[in-house]
Amino acid sequence: MTKEDRGMGSYSPKEFRALTWHDQAPAFRDGTDTPRAYLERCLAAIAEREPVVRAWAALNEAGARAAADASTARWKAGRPLSPIDGMTIGIKDLLETRDMPTEMGCAAYKGNFPKRDNAAVRALREAGAVVLGKTVTTELGGAHPGPTTNPFDARRTPGGSSSGSAAAVAARMVPAAIGTQVGGSIIRPAAYCGNVALKPTQGGINRGERQATSMSTHGPHAGCVEDAWLVAMAIASRAGGDPGKVALTGPAAPPAPLRPERLVVMETEGWEALDAASKSAFATLLSRLEAAGVTLLRRGDHPLVERFEQGIGDARATCNAITGWENRWSTRNLVDLHPEGVSARAKGVLAKAEAMTVADYQAALAVREEAQARHARIAPLADAVIALACPGPAPLWGGDVPGQPLEPRPTGDFVFNAPSSMLFAPAVTVPLLAVGGMPVGLQVMAQPNQDARAAAIARWLLASLPPVET
Amino acid sequence: MTKEDRGMGSYSPKEFRALTWHDQAPAFRDGTDTPRAYLERCLAAIAEREPVVRAWAALNEAGARAAADASTARWKAGRPLSPIDGMTIGIKDLLETRDMPTEMGCAAYKGNFPKRDNAAVRALREAGAVVLGKTVTTELGGAHPGPTTNPFDARRTPGGSSSGSAAAVAARMVPAAIGTQVGGSIIRPAAYCGNVALKPTQGGINRGERQATSMSTHGPHAGCVEDAWLVAMAIASRAGGDPGKVALTGPAAPPAPLRPERLVVMETEGWEALDAASKSAFATLLSRLEAAGVTLLRRGDHPLVERFEQGIGDARATCNAITGWENRWSTRNLVDLHPEGVSARAKGVLAKAEAMTVADYQAALAVREEAQARHARIAPLADAVIALACPGPAPLWGGDVPGQPLEPRPTGDFVFNAPSSMLFAPAVTVPLLAVGGMPVGLQVMAQPNQDARAAAIARWLLASLPPVET
Repeated sequence: MTKEDRGMGSYSPKEFRALTWHDQAPAFRDGTDTPRAYLERCLAAIAEREPVVRAWAALNEAGARAAADASTARWKAGRPLSPIDGMTIGIKDLLETRDMPTEMGCAAYKGNFPKRDNAAVRALREAGAVVLGKTVTTELGGAHPGPTTNPFDARRTPGGSSSGSAAAVAARMVPAAIGTQVGGSIIRPAAYCGNVALKPTQGGINRGERQATSMSTHGPHAGCVEDAWLVAMAIASRAGGDPGKVALTGPAAPPAPLRPERLVVMETEGWEALDAASKSAFATLLSRLEAAGVTLLRRGDHPLVERFEQGIGDARATCNAITGWENRWSTRNLVDLHPEGVSARAKGVLAKAEAMTVADYQAALAVREEAQARHARIAPLADAVIALACPGPAPLWGGDVPGQPLEPRPTGDFVFNAPSSMLFAPAVTVPLLAVGGMPVGLQVMAQPNQDARAAAIARWLLASLPPVET
Repeated sequence: MTKEDRGMGSYSPKEFRALTWHDQAPAFRDGTDTPRAYLERCLAAIAEREPVVRAWAALNEAGARAAADASTARWKAGRPLSPIDGMTIGIKDLLETRDMPTEMGCAAYKGNFPKRDNAAVRALREAGAVVLGKTVTTELGGAHPGPTTNPFDARRTPGGSSSGSAAAVAARMVPAAIGTQVGGSIIRPAAYCGNVALKPTQGGINRGERQATSMSTHGPHAGCVEDAWLVAMAIASRAGGDPGKVALTGPAAPPAPLRPERLVVMETEGWEALDAASKSAFATLLSRLEAAGVTLLRRGDHPLVERFEQGIGDARATCNAITGWENRWSTRNLVDLHPEGVSARAKGVLAKAEAMTVADYQAALAVREEAQARHARIAPLADAVIALACPGPAPLWGGDVPGQPLEPRPTGDFVFNAPSSMLFAPAVTVPLLAVGGMPVGLQVMAQPNQDARAAAIARWLLASLPPVET
């Protein structure tokens, strides 16, 4: 880890190297490295950086060491359980784990320890992965932030709700961590933290006990596309997709880089408010794409693209209405049981949801369905969609100020993420931009069930385009 | 209650009168009856019959009396919250209730008391309903039976998994009770117990915390179609459908009786093994339908009907594969935590599920989707589908015999119910047949989201056809 990693605005996509896993397999095979030694390096990174980064809600070091030793023996015997056998991994603290509490960043769940494994966690263990700990989530995956700071500038948010997962990867504490996204909770923190991340097609990865909302997904944060893909497939090939849904589809190995012929550039409702430096960095990136022979289609270029943008023109409000309604009963139960254990932010969301009717909810679903139809309509126009993955660099966040109104989005705005959520579309965060020394992620979004294509294009972008720093 | 209700094979659809609610509203309004008095009559029936019927897992008499008193006051003031304000109702013990334990018929859940309300339960309370108790379920809604007996012959099963809900309505303990169906758990026990019941379109009623499987529904058991409809709409108009799904659609008031022009007669894979007396009773009923001018279409009459029957020709196995897989992780967690708290039957289901691959599951989903497409294809041919709702009268069941192999289906065979489950189709149980003094239900099944049509045709059948007794 370099000194710069800890400084203020110290990120350079040219220089930053995340931990990776897939490229270590030869060393595990020939014994020059071991999963146990890898784990110890992770623990050393955590010991050094955790006091400031605060990515972890819980650690099970003893369990991880035992699992890493077992994996080391399997590699030594030439019988790893999977390509990610021995991989040190963090699990967002919304998912149940049998060996650690699941407190969901919420005071009402303090001490909650159901001793069960989420289906994805069980699948990871079956694949041999070393579940090291639980990563910090915002409260219940909502707006109220946890203690995690951005590894590239501790004055800034890491994004959320998968705050700890994104930060742990960015701080080189682990090669991968599981996040979850309802609105923008994987793609945005990954974008603020210089991660790669995969938000799969809705339903592509079995959410286990977490089936309560119609548009949430589990997905990996990682240091590279290859590792993100291997983690996602390790889960989906064992635990499948959500009930009734097609599991994540694609090759077992990471999809080879794919050069797109044409890309739709998605602006979203966040475009106008975007800062000039981020717009400029994105423009430079797009010009490099064009120089590489990729045709770009924007809203002015084709009426179907314009209609697509209009369809997602109110994506944040649509996502908030749908998810607020869907969480209404569980949040109401929680507030009834623990009135003091739920934040004012979450209670505000509940109040809005309880003012909705069934008809309001159905109307929001109709907006979502229409947007999905408009997305399907642009499929023939291009290989995928490209967009920013966050509205500029991670905002400063120093905590709530007593007596002041609550900042509504302390982990940043999900304006660039609501579309992939409501479209059920796979998206991959691609770390290729820096603005003011902070990461600003791109994203590649594909049609539903074309996760492999999104990953393949992401690999090509990373391999073919020089990063942009402004 | 008549003496016959308690005897062996004492059911006559001509004579049996279930409790009803909707027709009491005038008496509540003019004060000649009150919800509190209604509740006390229910409690008296429970006191008399519960020692043999054993329909209840828990009762909250004090809470119910307080709720009934509040309802009585609202009716007196001319301001009932809904048509079911004050209705005494039972809740299947799979659904969470804030005032009673939720033990799911499973030793591993003994004492489980999460103090939360399922979304449907909360909606019922918001509508003013009086939640009297939790009704017995088979273990986790699966094959392993609870203690409930059939109110018309205590030597026989009431059916399952909604055993207590069906029996409580049949024993005139309550006018309605909530059941749940994954394979046949509403329609079949209702058919064995002479209930009306509505298994709604998949997703039509919000299952709250119970979203883990792709084809389970909540639905009411009741003494008449009107009450079943009012209960279903009271929930759906407040809590909506499952996340992302259209809520139960139809009029707020019970749909008026509708005479069908044409009905498809569904045989299912259960037809060949059906006993002669039940076949004969069904044939008599069909001939009365034809005499009333209804055209019947059977598998020999139209190639699309034949293809439909073939599509559901392996419905039980398809349902078992899908649901087994979907419950695999939660059951595995439960068995790991409480090895002695889960029955051998449930462990057998788990073992089968753990032998499946993601590909096996996807193949079962494909069979289900094709069956749904074949069902959609017969929509233009007829107004609805009619079939038996159970394979003859409820089987005898005296409990497991030590040293003998486990009876695989102690609460009866779901062979006539698997189709509506896998088709996501609404179905209504219609008590119009008796065989050997025991109820044998019919069912009307409609296209998805045509719950109101199924209810309307069920009303017409009950109003227009004389019951058949053999």
